[in-house]
Amino acid sequence: MRISKLVGERLKDAPANATSRSHIYLSRAGYIKQVANGIYTFLPPAEKVSKKIQDIIREEMDAIDGQEVLFPVVMPRELWDLSGRYQSIGAELVRFKDRSQHDLVLGMTHEEAAVHAALGTVKSYEQLPFMIYQIQTKFRDEARARAGLIRVREFLMKDAYSFHTTQEDLENYYKKVYDSYIRIFSRIGLKKVISVHSDSGMMGGKVADEFQLLTDIGEDTIIICPNCDTASNIDVACSVIDDNDHIFGVKQEVFTGEAKTIDEVCSNLNKNPKQVVKAVCYAIIGNDKNVVIAFLRGDKEVNEAKLKSLVGSDIAIKDLEDSGLIKGNIGCVNLNLENALIYYDKSLEGLESFVTGANKEGYHFIGVSMTRDVKPDKYVDISKVSEGEKCPVCGANLLVKNGIEIGNIFQLGTRYTSKMGLTIHMPDGSQANPVMGCYGIGIGRCLASIAEENCDEKGLVWPMSVAPWHIYLCAIRNDDQNVKEQAERLYDKLTAENFEVLYDDRITSAGVKLTDSELMGIPVRIVISPKTIENGELEITIRKTGEKIFVKEENLSKKLDEIIVY
Amino acid sequence: MRISKLVGERLKDAPANATSRSHIYLSRAGYIKQVANGIYTFLPPAEKVSKKIQDIIREEMDAIDGQEVLFPVVMPRELWDLSGRYQSIGAELVRFKDRSQHDLVLGMTHEEAAVHAALGTVKSYEQLPFMIYQIQTKFRDEARARAGLIRVREFLMKDAYSFHTTQEDLENYYKKVYDSYIRIFSRIGLKKVISVHSDSGMMGGKVADEFQLLTDIGEDTIIICPNCDTASNIDVACSVIDDNDHIFGVKQEVFTGEAKTIDEVCSNLNKNPKQVVKAVCYAIIGNDKNVVIAFLRGDKEVNEAKLKSLVGSDIAIKDLEDSGLIKGNIGCVNLNLENALIYYDKSLEGLESFVTGANKEGYHFIGVSMTRDVKPDKYVDISKVSEGEKCPVCGANLLVKNGIEIGNIFQLGTRYTSKMGLTIHMPDGSQANPVMGCYGIGIGRCLASIAEENCDEKGLVWPMSVAPWHIYLCAIRNDDQNVKEQAERLYDKLTAENFEVLYDDRITSAGVKLTDSELMGIPVRIVISPKTIENGELEITIRKTGEKIFVKEENLSKKLDEIIVY
Repeated sequence: MRISKLVGERLKDAPANATSRSHIYLSRAGYIKQVANGIYTFLPPAEKVSKKIQDIIREEMDAIDGQEVLFPVVMPRELWDLSGRYQSIGAELVRFKDRSQHDLVLGMTHEEAAVHAALGTVKSYEQLPFMIYQIQTKFRDEARARAGLIRVREFLMKDAYSFHTTQEDLENYYKKVYDSYIRIFSRIGLKKVISVHSDSGMMGGKVADEFQLLTDIGEDTIIICPNCDTASNIDVACSVIDDNDHIFGVKQEVFTGEAKTIDEVCSNLNKNPKQVVKAVCYAIIGNDKNVVIAFLRGDKEVNEAKLKSLVGSDIAIKDLEDSGLIKGNIGCVNLNLENALIYYDKSLEGLESFVTGANKEGYHFIGVSMTRDVKPDKYVDISKVSEGEKCPVCGANLLVKNGIEIGNIFQLGTRYTSKMGLTIHMPDGSQANPVMGCYGIGIGRCLASIAEENCDEKGLVWPMSVAPWHIYLCAIRNDDQNVKEQAERLYDKLTAENFEVLYDDRITSAGVKLTDSELMGIPVRIVISPKTIENGELEITIRKTGEKIFVKEENLSKKLDEIIVY
Repeated sequence: MRISKLVGERLKDAPANATSRSHIYLSRAGYIKQVANGIYTFLPPAEKVSKKIQDIIREEMDAIDGQEVLFPVVMPRELWDLSGRYQSIGAELVRFKDRSQHDLVLGMTHEEAAVHAALGTVKSYEQLPFMIYQIQTKFRDEARARAGLIRVREFLMKDAYSFHTTQEDLENYYKKVYDSYIRIFSRIGLKKVISVHSDSGMMGGKVADEFQLLTDIGEDTIIICPNCDTASNIDVACSVIDDNDHIFGVKQEVFTGEAKTIDEVCSNLNKNPKQVVKAVCYAIIGNDKNVVIAFLRGDKEVNEAKLKSLVGSDIAIKDLEDSGLIKGNIGCVNLNLENALIYYDKSLEGLESFVTGANKEGYHFIGVSMTRDVKPDKYVDISKVSEGEKCPVCGANLLVKNGIEIGNIFQLGTRYTSKMGLTIHMPDGSQANPVMGCYGIGIGRCLASIAEENCDEKGLVWPMSVAPWHIYLCAIRNDDQNVKEQAERLYDKLTAENFEVLYDDRITSAGVKLTDSELMGIPVRIVISPKTIENGELEITIRKTGEKIFVKEENLSKKLDEIIVY
């Protein structure tokens, strides 16, 4: 490819909204162009990287007996009614009507389509297990698109669906996919990916793992044990909290006036947030009768994923003043409220002398005891893990990290097959719903994550396996006839030898060319200049290390074969 | 691939709505499954064919310096406002709102996105010419999806966009694309493709060619000269009509009562439709002031594409009785109508004694002369060519054929670049809008067209170049241990040698296996059975010819290498 004709100019400035390195460099180096909020065009260099990522993913999916298919982007509402997700998913699912006023949706995931493909064609246990996958465009109307390709609305995704006769068979296959994912991320150059336990979210199902790239710009919060390597998304992470002192106090009501927030109450009563019990109130979506009150220690935050899963419905934070509650004075004693689902977080266990609202304007109780005064039936885990809490497996201090979720795998069970009526003959003559797994990898997010992890102050540094081109052939002073001749000859020769070459044939300064080669992140640069011609050796520079290698033209191909390995 | 695990069952019956051979066989052989009207899932065998078609297209696009990109499926309204197509395209363009009430569209073609990609990055004539292409899902809300993959709403398409400094440069590149398309269709096995001149339709621009596969199930009408090979879509086809006798008659008004249609008038007056002039009336969309009346010979039909292009606006057929016209008695003499655009078709030239409405209830004129009584300023070409009319190039009798449009190429001019403000520095220092071309091929329609053309009464007959697998390894009586052993060994061996093998490992009857192999259309079948083992030779059958070849196992790979060429 001659850079003079390459579509996608190197730019001096990144878009104003670009803050992450991948967003800045992918924009500046001519890889991507924003078309709308969270919607991008992949210019030729990015499409080349994307294709290489896709090829690696295909190889690994095929290696675990995946069969590639293509599901539609646009699906009829009826399919999503069957699974119940037409109703249960919010605004991120795009719904629209066609010219005949039929309801359609834009696919954001394809469990329904996968079961539909099997309906009527998969009838017997003998046809199982199988896995089908696709690489297809998806649209999810994210409220907050951000960080370039990290969180977008339209994205290319590899999604795979496996079908099994038993949970055990699913679990065996799930391990294969897990290993396959580890290989994929390693091959595309994402070395810092870890797997973490996660919430199955809108997919349903019980077991789920995410593959997270640990990076400061990640928007997912990951809880990691540095001792035993247990890692979980904060949505499902557990910890042991053992810093309550179990010492009883004397309960009494005190006037706290305008003190409402934890900080104000602590300041007013000279207490620490760990000595206060706070209440967070929620409405239940689609249920006007009941409300939810979560009590937890003053220093803790509600983990809404966990709470939602306990309630079994979607919830939304809400003042419950029309239920007679007094904001800032809600407490877990003297609470008279019908139709409330009340949950006590495990952080409260062992708190026997704490502050809580008196459910009375301007008053709190002090010296309250969980065992003596509140007597909850049980404690539940509805709080977010904080740094320094103990690992539930080994007891070490937990760490909090940021991560980008670049892949996820789910054990779905029979949720979709039962709702959509996919049944098979079992060996014993009975009928059963196949057990499903589903497995996703975001292609664009992988691309951005690779960029994020492989860059320096000069620009991108692509790993060899996914680089858009391996070689940047840089003709410096190509107004010099000798330079031009050698450059053209080498470009033709290397291309004929199937090397992937981006040839800087522009008549412009050495500075621009060298800077562009670094910004674009091409792994190997070959410089041809009056000086290299005089010296009789070409200059090779390795982008990653800066190492320089000098080589005679007749030895070039051999040297490149040694360098370009992956 | 073991057929026992292949997703996509061979079915006895095609869907009730399937009438074309490709629709029937692709459904029955487990290639595609309908998800909604005009929306299909590609099951694994179809996805394999599709991928091979895509690979061939990519090779050919890269060979003419195409740069692959990926434009978004979902685009913001603003982009389509710039080109004016948000307004000008009808219900086939899907419009919807996102969660922030922004208007979005589903891409049905990507001229706007291509210009957007170039904006801000392409600035100088030195960067031109270039061509960018993508293979991406598109959605077009067709009113009448039909014939399986032939006319769908969601489809995968290769669309390409070239940018040039001059019309001449565009024309040179257009020829290259033309040749590239001929190579593509030949390589994927579509031998009966012809190129025809076409209307540029919603794309705009002046020169356009379609690539049409001539087949009875095609819904496009193509006019072909069997002598000089000129071929055109009926929308733009021209002909010479020379059967009017130029003999003058005597004009007189006659009572024709209830006779209104051409047939009734002819019967009433004992005339031939070629002796009658009929009127067809249209409203102009978006223009309430003017109406259109097209006069043409009674045996001819209006070519609305031509008429629309003359009027310069969209038109819709309409009774104009509120304009004072009398349905069935409209005629081209004594017509007093303000604000009417009146067109006379060339079929009227030389008619000097014809029948036409008297613009008076129950009356017609006979013996009317064009030159004496009507005196039109000019004749225009607004009628559809009929079989037997003369080729305007060589005078031979024209033929009317049906075709499936599988590709199209357009010279767009500066329509999009000027509207969207893409300007470049020209060599002389001036600024100019680049001249564009665009070039499409429907992947799924190609696939269906190949199936349509390559099948027999037993099923599909894939060309080697796009067959999902080259070899159907058919183990007959594989409950026999010897058969099973040899089949498994051969499957492993051939697969290791990179042959593409679909292995029928099912425990089922020979009849089912042989029938399935034929239905699925795999080019080469190898049968292993107790009989072939006894004979010491494997049985190879060529799907296309039925030819049988017997070969010893040790010579198999060599023989297959000879057979599998493309």
